[in-house]
Amino acid sequence: MKTLTLIGIGPGGPEYLTLQAIEAMRRVDVFFMLEKEGRGKEELLEIRRRIMDRYLEPGRYRVVTASSPPRSTAEGYRQGVAAWHAEKRALFVEFFERELAEGQCGAFLIWGDPALYDQTVSLISAIDAAAPDRYALEVIPGITAVQALTAQHRIPLNRVGEAINITTGRQMAQCDPSGVNNAFVMLDGEETFQRFTGQNMDIYWGAYLGTDDELLIAGDLDAVLGELLQTRRRARERKGWIMDTYLLSRRLRDD
Amino acid sequence: MKTLTLIGIGPGGPEYLTLQAIEAMRRVDVFFMLEKEGRGKEELLEIRRRIMDRYLEPGRYRVVTASSPPRSTAEGYRQGVAAWHAEKRALFVEFFERELAEGQCGAFLIWGDPALYDQTVSLISAIDAAAPDRYALEVIPGITAVQALTAQHRIPLNRVGEAINITTGRQMAQCDPSGVNNAFVMLDGEETFQRFTGQNMDIYWGAYLGTDDELLIAGDLDAVLGELLQTRRRARERKGWIMDTYLLSRRLRDD
Repeated sequence: MKTLTLIGIGPGGPEYLTLQAIEAMRRVDVFFMLEKEGRGKEELLEIRRRIMDRYLEPGRYRVVTASSPPRSTAEGYRQGVAAWHAEKRALFVEFFERELAEGQCGAFLIWGDPALYDQTVSLISAIDAAAPDRYALEVIPGITAVQALTAQHRIPLNRVGEAINITTGRQMAQCDPSGVNNAFVMLDGEETFQRFTGQNMDIYWGAYLGTDDELLIAGDLDAVLGELLQTRRRARERKGWIMDTYLLSRRLRDD
Repeated sequence: MKTLTLIGIGPGGPEYLTLQAIEAMRRVDVFFMLEKEGRGKEELLEIRRRIMDRYLEPGRYRVVTASSPPRSTAEGYRQGVAAWHAEKRALFVEFFERELAEGQCGAFLIWGDPALYDQTVSLISAIDAAAPDRYALEVIPGITAVQALTAQHRIPLNRVGEAINITTGRQMAQCDPSGVNNAFVMLDGEETFQRFTGQNMDIYWGAYLGTDDELLIAGDLDAVLGELLQTRRRARERKGWIMDTYLLSRRLRDD
């Protein structure tokens, strides 16, 4: 058997790691790191290297780095994702066969939590289901950007009795703004929050949470929109990448 | 100034704590512990005492324990909650004035994450807003039961592109079951999942996550319902309390 461990490392700051994650990292023989090509690639790898340097003894583990296969945009959204996932699975199987000896443990360090908008757990589960006696799969939860954001703004995720909606920029681009009361938005590269002005909305926004570059903006969306767009664009331009998230919350009459 | 720190401690197991949470605990002079009267009270206090014993030096902190005010059910839901919150705020102010010296730090250890279905952050924010130069407020995120559950079942919270819905047993009791595709349910003391049979639903259920008493059941809701009800009722009877959560997920045609 080979053990495959998916370890949630939180949104960036090394102090967001749980003791369970650190203990799991100490059992790892090989860390697999996939990163998209682009200006942010080196820095995103560096944040993880810094986490490993802080908690692990040097020389006790290996790191295997590869470029993440680019996402096909030629076909429809679902087909494109399916083809991309098949390519990633093939790459993972190659990794596990070539890089891990029998009895060894291979791991992926996952931003935030492995369950939230990261498909590695589904991909590895599919590999595991196709060869059930070959791999043991383990998942370690991590602090999500949702939690880092609410902690830094010192706000709750929900008002009394309300449901919580965590969604994507893509979904927010398609919905009716008047139907949204409370939505936590991830993976929004298109500044979709602009669609929600004039709706009596507050926004709580954060980028690079828990790192030295952390940015936070909160307030009436109509009032802070200009500052938010400028801050976000400058940061992305300067660093070459951005990881940001926000909560949109409609002001109720009794607030 | 007095510092008030809300520390997310995860769903129970001490290894779910983050390093940030442990560092924050080490700065605390007084831990405030409120627990509902009832059979589970002593055990819920004991889990937190065990976390403090593991990470803190004895004699460096004090613990102040009180019974949580009972929730009024006499009036409507919203009014009952408002009255209960006012009572809790008054108790908190009394704590902070009586138990904390100038410059000291008082803390609450919050199950899971302070932002998720816990109103302490809102109550303390209201106290802070009423006396802004008196208190500094700090929030430390923690692993939620949502994350512990998905990690133990090794599943993602969402399928590709789907939004995520985290809700309460109370909301699930009122909704149309055919309109639910994917819902993570917390605070369900009434076994509301029974409403969702015959709906092509899978359930992923867990109780006492991350502790020695952990229970996990997963499968077609129609098939596992009997086992689930029996397991849940026996556990609650034996221990006198239960903390459980579940994900309901409608099987799609291409799954």
